[in-house]
Amino acid sequence: MISQENLIQAHLRIKPFIHRTPVLTSERIDKQTGCQLFFKCENFQKVGAFKARGAMNAALQVLHKNLENGLATHSSGNHAAALARAASIVGTSAYIVMPRTAPEIKKKAVLGYGGKIFECEPTLKAREEMLAEVIKKTGATEIHPFNNEHVIAGQASVAKELLEDIPKLDFVLAPVGGGGLLSGTALAVHYFSPTTQVIAGEPEGADDTYRSLQSGKIELSQANSIADGLLTSLGDKTFPIIQQHVKEVITVSDAEIIQAMRTIWETMKIIIEPSCAVPFAALLKQKEKFAGNRVGIILSGGNVDLEKVLKLFTS
Amino acid sequence: MISQENLIQAHLRIKPFIHRTPVLTSERIDKQTGCQLFFKCENFQKVGAFKARGAMNAALQVLHKNLENGLATHSSGNHAAALARAASIVGTSAYIVMPRTAPEIKKKAVLGYGGKIFECEPTLKAREEMLAEVIKKTGATEIHPFNNEHVIAGQASVAKELLEDIPKLDFVLAPVGGGGLLSGTALAVHYFSPTTQVIAGEPEGADDTYRSLQSGKIELSQANSIADGLLTSLGDKTFPIIQQHVKEVITVSDAEIIQAMRTIWETMKIIIEPSCAVPFAALLKQKEKFAGNRVGIILSGGNVDLEKVLKLFTS
Repeated sequence: MISQENLIQAHLRIKPFIHRTPVLTSERIDKQTGCQLFFKCENFQKVGAFKARGAMNAALQVLHKNLENGLATHSSGNHAAALARAASIVGTSAYIVMPRTAPEIKKKAVLGYGGKIFECEPTLKAREEMLAEVIKKTGATEIHPFNNEHVIAGQASVAKELLEDIPKLDFVLAPVGGGGLLSGTALAVHYFSPTTQVIAGEPEGADDTYRSLQSGKIELSQANSIADGLLTSLGDKTFPIIQQHVKEVITVSDAEIIQAMRTIWETMKIIIEPSCAVPFAALLKQKEKFAGNRVGIILSGGNVDLEKVLKLFTS
Repeated sequence: MISQENLIQAHLRIKPFIHRTPVLTSERIDKQTGCQLFFKCENFQKVGAFKARGAMNAALQVLHKNLENGLATHSSGNHAAALARAASIVGTSAYIVMPRTAPEIKKKAVLGYGGKIFECEPTLKAREEMLAEVIKKTGATEIHPFNNEHVIAGQASVAKELLEDIPKLDFVLAPVGGGGLLSGTALAVHYFSPTTQVIAGEPEGADDTYRSLQSGKIELSQANSIADGLLTSLGDKTFPIIQQHVKEVITVSDAEIIQAMRTIWETMKIIIEPSCAVPFAALLKQKEKFAGNRVGIILSGGNVDLEKVLKLFTS
């Protein structure tokens, strides 16, 4: 059970190591959508995504006697760089298991923070086996990308800051993959602004959260979307929080994600990654639900392969 | 002669109608360049570029008896949308002569602000003839994109804000096309931070300012660069100010511009147009000149055709 005090402590703990990211607005998008939108820009966060927060909080919570053996995880995405950075800040090693198909730019980011990469086949099984082996050899502490209470408490600081800067929001929208950001958001809203509703955006081709809320148990993701940060299924730590505190999941197609991403690039002149555009795509899809309201949208990250994204725009 | 008082009054006059744009920093770019950089983000300005300032100031200075006949200009770029917006704010018509080859997105922006477009052949002669005809018919007041003291005083507010937010800069870098932004920047620095040096970035394929400072007279631009906002030659109002107050012009190739633009997109997660990347490209080219210094860089705008940029990044 993650308490209000846990969230406050987590935020204080990581503050010196993260950016307090700006909240941007756009008159043009407000006019287009009929609501007042507040975009919390985690694309400007350290390592280019909110993941810097959770990894930092978790790293700072590892007991000193365990810390010297290093931190470990498997990740093909932003958590990999975030953990490598956190490990370098607390002065220990980071062992990152990455599928050999992970983008070069993500591998470079890990190496740039001094992390050690272990490449494996791009299957969950191969990743887990390689991680177990690495941990056995090194004695490193595993920091899971989302199914970890310290990580969830760290991610909660995004919504906490948003609510501090912009009070009286009617809705907060966040994307959902494994649910670290969404469960943290839901807890922050529950504790700090209980009348605000939390709604998730999810890709149609990875709509396991939508289905999990319907069936009442964790469903598996089909992992079929351009939103490459949202392909995982929920964990047993994130699902119960989401079940309790998230009002609704709105699913969107890849075409809707690309259109939403392009609108933000062109109108706001900021770069966001496909996964990051999902909550805004959800709002565009169900405009009438939000009309006339004050809506916070968490922009989760801005790490893109430019060639790939620009091709999405032209195809 | 544009006085310090003119700049102060211009800034007060336009303040209600423009954004005070943020100044962003990047630890990663500071490390890469060895200096402390402060990016003044006019890509987040109304109409997506600093041009909103000068057009607004000029529109607010037109005598009431002349105002009802409308405002007119020829422009294929950001000044067109800026003037259409300014005219709609002061409650008059905007007559914009545009070459028929101007990008659709720019035409749309003008129409979106209620401007009337007159298409002509894409030559300076055709543009000037068509503008003269429109003015003869309508009695509209011409607002030149840069060779106009009210426009220059308006553009000066960019550097004025930058110097207010970030004192004690050693250098301010701005791009130069017709010289509206550069001469305004030079005046603001001269009046408000006289020990700061102003340096211009200019495309090699449109290096008329570089040559003009050498020869002591206005040279014509070859107009051959991807920096499509910087292809014009100086005017008789901008050249003398630049001659007196700009320390140096650094020229850069298109390849250097593309590389600088890409670094800003990927590292800072913001969208800037090719012209806007020119001063940063100039700094990267002559790093040693700026090492250890506090440098302000004016990011002039963010209006890009995404398909076109993709081609630049992949070719």
